[in-house]
Amino acid sequence: MRSALYTGNATIVIEDRPPVAPGPGQVQIEVAYTGICGTDLHILHGAMDHRVQAPQTIGHEMSGRIAAVGPGVEGLSVGQPVTVMPLQWCGTCPACAAGHQHICHRLNFIGIDSPGAMQQLWTVPATVVIPLPEDLSLTDAALVEPAAVAVHDVRRAALQAGEQAIVVGGGPVGVLIALVARSVGAEVVLLELDAHRRAVAEQLGLRTLDPSKQDVAVEIRDWTKGAGASVVFEVSGSAAGIGTAVQALAVRGRLVIVGIHNEPRKVDLFQFFWRELTMVGARVYERPDYDTAIELLRRGDIPTDVLISRIEPLEHAAAAFAALHRGGDVMKVLIDCRMAG
Amino acid sequence: MRSALYTGNATIVIEDRPPVAPGPGQVQIEVAYTGICGTDLHILHGAMDHRVQAPQTIGHEMSGRIAAVGPGVEGLSVGQPVTVMPLQWCGTCPACAAGHQHICHRLNFIGIDSPGAMQQLWTVPATVVIPLPEDLSLTDAALVEPAAVAVHDVRRAALQAGEQAIVVGGGPVGVLIALVARSVGAEVVLLELDAHRRAVAEQLGLRTLDPSKQDVAVEIRDWTKGAGASVVFEVSGSAAGIGTAVQALAVRGRLVIVGIHNEPRKVDLFQFFWRELTMVGARVYERPDYDTAIELLRRGDIPTDVLISRIEPLEHAAAAFAALHRGGDVMKVLIDCRMAG
Repeated sequence: MRSALYTGNATIVIEDRPPVAPGPGQVQIEVAYTGICGTDLHILHGAMDHRVQAPQTIGHEMSGRIAAVGPGVEGLSVGQPVTVMPLQWCGTCPACAAGHQHICHRLNFIGIDSPGAMQQLWTVPATVVIPLPEDLSLTDAALVEPAAVAVHDVRRAALQAGEQAIVVGGGPVGVLIALVARSVGAEVVLLELDAHRRAVAEQLGLRTLDPSKQDVAVEIRDWTKGAGASVVFEVSGSAAGIGTAVQALAVRGRLVIVGIHNEPRKVDLFQFFWRELTMVGARVYERPDYDTAIELLRRGDIPTDVLISRIEPLEHAAAAFAALHRGGDVMKVLIDCRMAG
Repeated sequence: MRSALYTGNATIVIEDRPPVAPGPGQVQIEVAYTGICGTDLHILHGAMDHRVQAPQTIGHEMSGRIAAVGPGVEGLSVGQPVTVMPLQWCGTCPACAAGHQHICHRLNFIGIDSPGAMQQLWTVPATVVIPLPEDLSLTDAALVEPAAVAVHDVRRAALQAGEQAIVVGGGPVGVLIALVARSVGAEVVLLELDAHRRAVAEQLGLRTLDPSKQDVAVEIRDWTKGAGASVVFEVSGSAAGIGTAVQALAVRGRLVIVGIHNEPRKVDLFQFFWRELTMVGARVYERPDYDTAIELLRRGDIPTDVLISRIEPLEHAAAAFAALHRGGDVMKVLIDCRMAG
């Protein structure tokens, strides 16, 4: 069975590896498609070497069908289409005890902290397997995980129909957030510097602004008739994004921190006081977010034909990572892990 | 009638001024006691000269009895004990339209933007007058306004019985927040550098820590059994306070910004993402906060005998401001504005 391994030094190698037979409580999945996430790019470039034990198969956005079921697994059967919610929690730490298992103090993020999905046969605990409806294609289903991230972000914002929301950053997560926000009935504007990403968003019917050419403060003021936006999603991870977000918010507006900020940012706390702003962090997803993501993909509220830029064979995974790293005309890239016929 | 006027240049002057007769929709109050707020000290030292038109009577924490009622005022009568919720909003801006009148874009904060309570006869719109129960003393009632601030802060935190909360900063507002937090059944620890303020808090039965001598991170970890605090109230307005707060919070913990931060602060946004923290700003109060504050004072949950350090006659207002500015053994100071006989 073929597997894409991160071997350190910004290197992906495709190798034959023996498949792992499913033990008690485990399921072996024949992987169909695995998406490349921004986190996977960070792993490739060594930013997460403190968590990733090379050589390691990475990848956590995926779809497939059950290939084998280990002893004691109930409710799952061979051939069933599935995806994975790649979180394993301890169940006993204070976060788990408080019901926030997705932020477990000892979380195992499968595909980062343990082997991931960029291989033909992937063995995981049955508890993380999510059955899919038969009428959702396996290419579309590879977007369930990132869509669940966006659903979680929108839920953390408590976004309501009719509210005006801004998304700062138009990569795959930003665009998915904009689509989910639109699906709940919000009006959305997406800020993005890259022309290709703006073009993809416009193709999806989203309004975009280019902060390098347009005066965002003036545009948002006019758009919101002087009130400011109810919600801003900060997906860029940049200092400028935070400044723009705080400035753009209405009284009692909510700022959702989605992007990774690797260093402390200067935040105008006086404005938090003065306008009673709220800032909430949003990390991964909870189980109901998967159900919503599946439903949105099924309904076509997340148009995968526009979002999926390319599907590359597993043997070309290294080149696919390199192309994504260079940027350019690309949004989401899937790796086709299907075994021959 | 005697009035304490801020005349600029860090100066308070006591003068005879003609009382303002109540016009249509107005009420004239014979002021009993007016508390000195931190904001009043800021005004005295010129920090708010962009809003305060000197010479101006300041003060907005007060109690008194109605002296006269203008034409068209209903439901209020001469002799009735009252306090004031010193906010006048426009009713038409986006914040008012959204129901957040206390953050009106054109808010008139009476006592800052227009004449205040540190005088014997004060004329205000009837809409800002709050009747008091006869069994609440007028000295205690002078604390309704700052207590309502604390009630609002605790309400913004959505603090629940059994939760563990930290208050960073033990001045009058911090101590009031700690008392209100205790009244809802939370466990509270108060952080304060000043020994006198800690002593007052301890006298009120509050647990305190001295961040200059104790390792707050270790103390909080032990106190919360490794979980972190559910809520932190940042009342100090300091950069260090923000750092302490973010470090001390549990997964999904809530940080309430109460203190004024005059410059942007570095905030560890990665921790907001990683632990799904929430930060909310809290400004003044809404009408229900006054009702709760009155009830807490009436029940003795806010022990005014410990909180009120001194009551000084109006003629000595300048000296009272100076003493408060010097700091030392003082918490809340009231100015006795009562007319002779």
